[in-house]
Amino acid sequence: MLFNLTVDAYIRNLNHLKNILTKAKAWQESAGFKEETLLNAHLGVDQFGLARQVQMAADHAKKGSAVLCGIEAPKYEDNEKSIAELQTRIDKTVAFLTTLTSDMVKDDLETKMVPLNWMPGKGLTAKFFVENYSLSNFYFHYTTAYSILRNFGLPIGKGDYMAFELKDIA
Amino acid sequence: MLFNLTVDAYIRNLNHLKNILTKAKAWQESAGFKEETLLNAHLGVDQFGLARQVQMAADHAKKGSAVLCGIEAPKYEDNEKSIAELQTRIDKTVAFLTTLTSDMVKDDLETKMVPLNWMPGKGLTAKFFVENYSLSNFYFHYTTAYSILRNFGLPIGKGDYMAFELKDIA
Repeated sequence: MLFNLTVDAYIRNLNHLKNILTKAKAWQESAGFKEETLLNAHLGVDQFGLARQVQMAADHAKKGSAVLCGIEAPKYEDNEKSIAELQTRIDKTVAFLTTLTSDMVKDDLETKMVPLNWMPGKGLTAKFFVENYSLSNFYFHYTTAYSILRNFGLPIGKGDYMAFELKDIA
Repeated sequence: MLFNLTVDAYIRNLNHLKNILTKAKAWQESAGFKEETLLNAHLGVDQFGLARQVQMAADHAKKGSAVLCGIEAPKYEDNEKSIAELQTRIDKTVAFLTTLTSDMVKDDLETKMVPLNWMPGKGLTAKFFVENYSLSNFYFHYTTAYSILRNFGLPIGKGDYMAFELKDIA
């Protein structure tokens, strides 16, 4: 069940994010402004721009899932310079996530510690890291990427964020 | 575990949202603009404003948790006209959530259907509703409320959204 709420949900939502970026790219081209403007678009003056929000959503999905399964996550450089490269980053992340299976979920999540790289010497239990830190950070950065594009004027809606598949509706 | 990722997480994050609203109110008063301007602030031109985002975050938390435990959620009117009233809405929601306990979690989530009021005659399994629909909608509206305030200029940061407590850090 925890696997479903994390790994499976990350795969599904990262694919939604990839589709939103496809719409953003087509819109940028038809509107005739620079792709760089889109990549750097942001909300708060001291918040990260679109490209970094996408990288962070993918990274929280990757790290949270790796901790859940007790393995090392692959490392990717943050060097994407286009929407297409951000989509490749998403594809790589999803490819990693699809190698994970629910029987890999560790049973020592409550005792194992995960260091926080921004707080040297401190950490969270793997359980708190997976269930709270990664999950809420993933949705934060996914929603913020969506919100940046909404605020910028891209005609998308909640259906792009949720992206139900017909099979989910009885 | 599902209870922890939903009911417990909703309580914790709704309290973070309440604290963010306290900062927003103090900032609005010190900056000297109308409270109504804050309540109506929004990102996309056709997106809901701050007040509605807060109501929706609280409602998704309430409904998802009620479905998880197989009970009816209390209904609240959407009539809040101030930050203080939105905070009362959060308090009422948290008070309801704290009446729930993990032993109330239903074991028929995979077979029970939850109707979608915006799609007459259609519905989701309670399992999909709780694990996917409510959870991702909750984080969507919580993050969007945060993003509206960030975009508006309120000096808050990720620490307000995550709001770790010291006890979580070992």
